[in-house]
Amino acid sequence: MKLQLFEKLDNSYQDMVQIRRYLHMHPEVSFEETETAKYIQQFYDQLGVSYEANVGGNGVVARIKGTKPGKTIALRADFDALPIQEMNDISYKSTIAGAMHACGHDGHTATLLQLAKSLHEMRDHLAGEYVIIHQHAEEMAPGGAKPMVEAGCLNGVDAIFGTHLWSQTPFGTIEHRPGPMMASADRFEITIQGRGGHGAMPQDTIDAVTIGAQLITYIQQIVSRRVDPIKSAVVTIGSFNAGDAFNVIAGEAKMSGTVRTFSPEVRDIVEAEIERIVKGTCLAANCSYTFNFLRGYPPVVNHEKEAAFLSDIAKDIPGVNASLECAPLMVGEDFSYYLEKVPGVFFFTGAMPEGTAYPHHHPKFNFREEAMLIAAKTLGAAVLDYQNL
Amino acid sequence: MKLQLFEKLDNSYQDMVQIRRYLHMHPEVSFEETETAKYIQQFYDQLGVSYEANVGGNGVVARIKGTKPGKTIALRADFDALPIQEMNDISYKSTIAGAMHACGHDGHTATLLQLAKSLHEMRDHLAGEYVIIHQHAEEMAPGGAKPMVEAGCLNGVDAIFGTHLWSQTPFGTIEHRPGPMMASADRFEITIQGRGGHGAMPQDTIDAVTIGAQLITYIQQIVSRRVDPIKSAVVTIGSFNAGDAFNVIAGEAKMSGTVRTFSPEVRDIVEAEIERIVKGTCLAANCSYTFNFLRGYPPVVNHEKEAAFLSDIAKDIPGVNASLECAPLMVGEDFSYYLEKVPGVFFFTGAMPEGTAYPHHHPKFNFREEAMLIAAKTLGAAVLDYQNL
Amino acid sequence: MKLQLFEKLDNSYQDMVQIRRYLHMHPEVSFEETETAKYIQQFYDQLGVSYEANVGGNGVVARIKGTKPGKTIALRADFDALPIQEMNDISYKSTIAGAMHACGHDGHTATLLQLAKSLHEMRDHLAGEYVIIHQHAEEMAPGGAKPMVEAGCLNGVDAIFGTHLWSQTPFGTIEHRPGPMMASADRFEITIQGRGGHGAMPQDTIDAVTIGAQLITYIQQIVSRRVDPIKSAVVTIGSFNAGDAFNVIAGEAKMSGTVRTFSPEVRDIVEAEIERIVKGTCLAANCSYTFNFLRGYPPVVNHEKEAAFLSDIAKDIPGVNASLECAPLMVGEDFSYYLEKVPGVFFFTGAMPEGTAYPHHHPKFNFREEAMLIAAKTLGAAVLDYQNL
Amino acid sequence: MKLQLFEKLDNSYQDMVQIRRYLHMHPEVSFEETETAKYIQQFYDQLGVSYEANVGGNGVVARIKGTKPGKTIALRADFDALPIQEMNDISYKSTIAGAMHACGHDGHTATLLQLAKSLHEMRDHLAGEYVIIHQHAEEMAPGGAKPMVEAGCLNGVDAIFGTHLWSQTPFGTIEHRPGPMMASADRFEITIQGRGGHGAMPQDTIDAVTIGAQLITYIQQIVSRRVDPIKSAVVTIGSFNAGDAFNVIAGEAKMSGTVRTFSPEVRDIVEAEIERIVKGTCLAANCSYTFNFLRGYPPVVNHEKEAAFLSDIAKDIPGVNASLECAPLMVGEDFSYYLEKVPGVFFFTGAMPEGTAYPHHHPKFNFREEAMLIAAKTLGAAVLDYQNL
Repeated sequence: MKLQLFEKLDNSYQDMVQIRRYLHMHPEVSFEETETAKYIQQFYDQLGVSYEANVGGNGVVARIKGTKPGKTIALRADFDALPIQEMNDISYKSTIAGAMHACGHDGHTATLLQLAKSLHEMRDHLAGEYVIIHQHAEEMAPGGAKPMVEAGCLNGVDAIFGTHLWSQTPFGTIEHRPGPMMASADRFEITIQGRGGHGAMPQDTIDAVTIGAQLITYIQQIVSRRVDPIKSAVVTIGSFNAGDAFNVIAGEAKMSGTVRTFSPEVRDIVEAEIERIVKGTCLAANCSYTFNFLRGYPPVVNHEKEAAFLSDIAKDIPGVNASLECAPLMVGEDFSYYLEKVPGVFFFTGAMPEGTAYPHHHPKFNFREEAMLIAAKTLGAAVLDYQNL
Repeated sequence: MKLQLFEKLDNSYQDMVQIRRYLHMHPEVSFEETETAKYIQQFYDQLGVSYEANVGGNGVVARIKGTKPGKTIALRADFDALPIQEMNDISYKSTIAGAMHACGHDGHTATLLQLAKSLHEMRDHLAGEYVIIHQHAEEMAPGGAKPMVEAGCLNGVDAIFGTHLWSQTPFGTIEHRPGPMMASADRFEITIQGRGGHGAMPQDTIDAVTIGAQLITYIQQIVSRRVDPIKSAVVTIGSFNAGDAFNVIAGEAKMSGTVRTFSPEVRDIVEAEIERIVKGTCLAANCSYTFNFLRGYPPVVNHEKEAAFLSDIAKDIPGVNASLECAPLMVGEDFSYYLEKVPGVFFFTGAMPEGTAYPHHHPKFNFREEAMLIAAKTLGAAVLDYQNL
Repeated sequence: MKLQLFEKLDNSYQDMVQIRRYLHMHPEVSFEETETAKYIQQFYDQLGVSYEANVGGNGVVARIKGTKPGKTIALRADFDALPIQEMNDISYKSTIAGAMHACGHDGHTATLLQLAKSLHEMRDHLAGEYVIIHQHAEEMAPGGAKPMVEAGCLNGVDAIFGTHLWSQTPFGTIEHRPGPMMASADRFEITIQGRGGHGAMPQDTIDAVTIGAQLITYIQQIVSRRVDPIKSAVVTIGSFNAGDAFNVIAGEAKMSGTVRTFSPEVRDIVEAEIERIVKGTCLAANCSYTFNFLRGYPPVVNHEKEAAFLSDIAKDIPGVNASLECAPLMVGEDFSYYLEKVPGVFFFTGAMPEGTAYPHHHPKFNFREEAMLIAAKTLGAAVLDYQNL
Repeated sequence: MKLQLFEKLDNSYQDMVQIRRYLHMHPEVSFEETETAKYIQQFYDQLGVSYEANVGGNGVVARIKGTKPGKTIALRADFDALPIQEMNDISYKSTIAGAMHACGHDGHTATLLQLAKSLHEMRDHLAGEYVIIHQHAEEMAPGGAKPMVEAGCLNGVDAIFGTHLWSQTPFGTIEHRPGPMMASADRFEITIQGRGGHGAMPQDTIDAVTIGAQLITYIQQIVSRRVDPIKSAVVTIGSFNAGDAFNVIAGEAKMSGTVRTFSPEVRDIVEAEIERIVKGTCLAANCSYTFNFLRGYPPVVNHEKEAAFLSDIAKDIPGVNASLECAPLMVGEDFSYYLEKVPGVFFFTGAMPEGTAYPHHHPKFNFREEAMLIAAKTLGAAVLDYQNL
C-alpha cells in the first residue's frame, strides 16, 4: 500500500510544483493569509473532501476517513509568508511587494495538499482517519497553532507528524531528534528609570547608563551560574539604548532581549532570575524600572517512541539516503503546541538547493523542489505505518 | 578717581541697558557673530577709540592708553549667543528664530562697552593701558579665546579680569575663588566593533552590548581608584547605543561622554586610563574599537594674588554686599586660555532676577540688569586699583 | 555459555564480598596502593593466570586467552582509595586512619577478580582474549589510566568495558549514554599582581581587589556568550583571596577555579578565553598576572555502537530491571583515556543502599554489595556477546 | 611676654628631650597607658599644679590660672603608643617588646609638659586660664578624646590648639588649612551568605564569589556617580576572602573596607549607598548578607578664624621659616571631637629628620627632636596671642 501511495505521489509531482509556485507568487503574511486559505478550501471543494474553515483564525482542517478501523493521525503544514522583499530572479517570483515565502511554507502546503489528495483517492483501502491541518501564522507569535488546537483540531487525534523543508540540510537527508529539538523563544523588555541631569553633576542624577551596564554584567550570571550546565539557555540583550548627548547624564535606558531554552523549568528559572536581577540592581541604585516578559512558542519536544519510529521508516523512503539525529536548534516553531497535546514528531526534510543555499528568511531563500516529494512520501509512510505500530 | 569712574558708570546705565537689549534682540551664534562684531566696531568708531578687528576670527580688541606710565591690564567680554529658541515674553525678545542670548553675553558686552567709554573719557588722568577684549565664540569649542590669544591680544598685558553675570548667584554678591574655579570639559567617543548575529547563537558573535557593559563598569574605577580623592574628576558616559532588535546580537556599540577635571595632571591621567580600559576590555573580547578624545577648554584657574586682591576691593564696590569664595564649578569657560598666559581672575557677578531664576542656557533665562552696573564698577575698580598693587 | 558464566558468578558471590571487605579494611590512597597491587598479583598467582605487574605504576594486567580465535576485549577496574576518615560503623571498617574506600573501588576490584576467575575457568570454551586491567590512581590527576595506556595495556585490544558502582542510582538499574557521559575536569590558577598601599590613597596603588572583581564578572561571559549553548561548559572560580586588613589596599589577589566540558573544542575555547580575559583585564589596569591552566582528565565519551550494544544486552541480565540513558555528569573519570584509544563503553551499575544513600566521597559512603554481582554479569555478558557483534 | 616664654622654653629643651626619651623607652599601647598617666601626674605633683586624673579613662587634665581675667584656652597632647616592634638602633629604644612610640606622641607629651611648666611659672603675669589636656588612646577608635570631652575637659573653654610632630614635613615648616584637614575614617564589614556546593554544579549553589565580584564593581559607582565630585570620598575594600578549594563553589564571601570623607553629609551618603548596594545585589542573587558600618573619628575641621590667626602668628615663631596651607589628608585623628565643641586649630609641626624620613607607624619612625621646641613655642604663642584676638 505504501508503494501505491509513493506511485500516486510521483505522479502528482508536477501538480505539487505548480501549486507551490502559484503560492510563491501570491504570498500573504501571518494573520492576513485569507486568499491562501480560500485557495486551500477550493482545492478540497474540487476534490470533494469535507473540511472546516476558519479554524482558530485562517486555519483549514480537512478530514479523510478510511473504511477500516484504526488510529486517527494528523499532518500539519503551515501556509503564511514573511514581510520580506524577494530578491530572487525566478519565473515564479513573488508578485506582492514586501511579502515573500522565504521559509518554504508554500512548499509545505503544496506537499500536504497532494498527499491529502492521494490519501483521499486511497480511502477505501485505508484504516483509521487522517486529519489534514493547514495552519496559518507560524511566523509570528502568538501563532496559529495555539488557537487551532484550542478550536479542537486535535480532537480524537492519536498522533501528529510535520516537517520543515530545510535549505541548510543536504537533499536526501531526513533529520530530527528525540526530545527537545527546537527552542522556546521568548522576548523581554527592560526600562531603567533613573534621573537625568548635567554630565558634570552625577551626584544630582541617577545614571541609567551605569546602572544598565551593571545590570547587563549581572545578567550573565544566569546562564553561567544559575542554569544546569547540562541544559541549554540563551539570554541575549539585543538592544541597549540610553542618552543622546555626550554631556548629559541619561535618565532612562531601554533594553530588549530574547531568551531561548528547551525545558519549561529552565524557562521559568530564567524569567524569574532576570526579573530578580533587574529588581535588585535597581533597588541598589534607588531607581525604578519596568520589566515585561513575553512568552513566545514553547520548545518543540519530539516524543521518544515516534522519533524512533520515524528514524526507522525514513531510511527506506525512496530518495532518502540518510536518516540522522540532528543537534537541537535554538530557533522556534509553534508545532510545539501540537506535541504538547498528542504524541508525534517534527522533522527536517533536506532541501538544500544546488548553488548557494541561502538561509531561511533571506531575500534569496529557495529550496530544491524535489524535496517536496520526499517530504510527502515520508509523511505518507509515517501515517500508514503508524497504523501498525 | 574710582569715585569719578563710578559716577560716569552710573550715568551710563541707561545706555548700557539699551545696548544690552539691542544685542538681545539680535543674537548671533558662535563663530557667526559678524553683525555683533560690526556693532562693537561702530561703537568704538563713534568714540574715536582705535581697535583691531577680526582678531582670531570675529574678535575685536580696543586699546585705551592713559597718559602716565603704568601696567597694561586687559578686560574681556564674550559676545556670542546660543542656538536656543527664546521663550521669554519680553519687549526686547530675540528677533532671530532659534538663536538667543541665553547666557548673558549681551550683558557682558554692554557692560564692557560702557566701561571702555568711561575709561576713554578719563584717559588723561589714567596711568597704564587698558586692553578691551571683545571675544567671539565662547559657547562652542575650540572657542574664540584661543585664537585671539594666538593672534596676540595679550601682548604686553600684565593682568586680566573678566566676569560672568550669574543668574544663580544673589544680586549684590561677587563670587570667585583662588585656584581652580571652573573645570576643563572634554569629550570622548568610543565605538566597540564586535560581530553581530542571531540572538540565539552568541558563540558565533562578538556581543558589543555585553562588552560595552563590562567597559562601563570598568571605567567607574578611574574616578574611584585612579584619581587622587583630594582632586576632582568626572567621567560621564552620556550615551550608549547598540542594537535595535530584541533577537539580534548587536555587532556595534557607540558611546559618548565627557570628562571634567581641574588639573592638567588629572586630565592626562583620565584620558590615558579611559583609553587603557577600552583597549584592555576589547582585547579581552577579541574585538576592535575606535577611541577619540577631544579636548575642550582647560580649567579656569584664578591666580592667588589677583584673587585675594579682588576679594579685597570687591567688598567696597557700591551695590556689593557680599564678596564670597565659591566652590569650584564643573562647567567650562574659555577664559582659561587668558589665565594660562597672564595673571588674573574670573569672577561671578550675582545677577539673580526677581521671580524664577532660570539657569543659564534655559529658553527662559534672564538676569537682573542692574547687575551690569555692579560688574562694570567691579571691573573698573579692579583695573584702577591694580595699578597700585 | 552466558548462563554458565552467570552460574559461576553466583557461586563466587561470597568470595567477592570477602575480597571487597578485605580491601575495604586495607585502603591505600592514589599512587601509594602497593599492598593492594600485591594482593591482586597473589590472587592471579594462586589462580595460575599470568599477568604483568607495575604497569605504568602500580597497575596489574592479566590476560586470559580462549582457545578459539576471536576479539581481544579489555575490562578495567580501579583500586585506589581516598584520603578520607571513614565514619561508618561497620564490621569491615577501614583500619587505616585517614584512608577509606569511599568511592567503591574496593567493589570494582572484587568484581573484576571474580569475573576473571570465572573466565579463566571457562577458557577452554572461549573465543578471543580477555585483558584484565587493574588500574591504580583513578582519584588523583594525572591518574593511572594514562601511564597504563602508554605502557601498552591496550595493545591488540578491540574494545573495552568498565563500570562504576553508583550509590546514587537505584539497585537493579544500568545507566549510561552514547557520546559524552562524564566531563573533563581542569584546574586553573590566576594571580593578579597590582600594587598595595594605604586604604586612603588608591591613586598610589593598583587595587587587586577591584581588578579581580572586574575579572570575575567578565569571565561569566565565557559560558553566557562564547560557548555554543547546545554544548555544556562550567567555569567556576572556587576561591578568591586578597588582602587581610580593612584599611590597606591589597596588591595581590589569588584565584583558583575549575573548568568542565564535554568536548575538546569547547575545552580549548574556554581555556583560551579565560586567558584572553585575564590578559585584557590586567592590561586595562596596567598590572601583571600569572595564569596556569592544568588539564585534568578528558571527557569520558562512550562509543555509539558499543553504547547501543550494551543497552541491548543489559536489559536481559538477571537482576537488571532497567537499562536507561542517563544525563551527562559533570564529574570526571580517567576511563576517558581508554576510550580515546579503543571503542567501548563506561556504565553505572546501580548500587543504592537501603537507608541513606550517601554520595561518593562522603565519610559514610557505602553501596549495596549485591550490585557487584550484577556488575560482574553485565561485564561478563558484554565480553561474551561482543565476540559475536 | 612671648619672648619670656620662648626663653623659658629654650632653657627647658634638655628636660623636654629627656622626658621624650624616657617615654619612648616605656611605651604603652592605647587604653593601657596607666604608667604614662602616672608619670604625667607625678610631673604636675612635683610642680604643684592641680590636675584631674582618670578623665574619660587614663586622661589627665591640668589647669593653670593666670591672675588677670581672660579667655580659657585648651592645649592637647596625646600619649599612647602603638603595637609595633621598634627596629631603630638608638640609645633610647623601646624597652617594651611589641610596643613603640612610632607616631611621636612621646614628643607631644614632652612638649606639652614643658610648655605647661613654663606657663605655670609665668602665671602671675598671665591673663585667662590654660587647660592642659593629656589625652590617652588616640590611635584606636573609639579613642580617648570623645570620653574626655564627655567628662567635661572642655568646660568653660573658649578655644583649643593642638599639633602633630610630622616626619614628612620639613623641619621649620608649620602646616595646616582652614576647614577640613583630616578625614573621617570609618570601617565596614560585609559577609555574603550564599550556598556552597560542587564546582561542577553551579545551579545548586549561590556562588558567593561571583556575587561578591558584582558587588565590588557596583560599589565603585558610589565615588564615581553618587558623591559630589567637588567633595572627596574614598571607599576601599581592603580584603575579600572566599573559598579555599579550586573545585568547590564558595558559599560565603567576607569583605572589609574603609571609608574616608571630609563632610558629614558625604559620610552619610556613602554609608547609606554601600548598604543599599549590598542589599540590592544580594536581593538580585537571592542570598542573605550581614553589613556592619563602624564609624571612626569624624573629620578634623579647623575653624576659619583660628586657622587664619595661626597662619599669622606662626611665621614669626623663632625657627619657623614657612607657614603653609597643606592639602587635606585622608588619615584620621580624634582631635576632631574637640573642634566639634569649641573653635580651634590642629596643625603639623615639621619634624623631618636628617637621613631617611620613615613614615608614621613605621618600625623605624623617628623625628627631629628640635621640632618639639618649635611646637612648644607655636602653641605658647597661640595661647598668649589668642587672649588679644
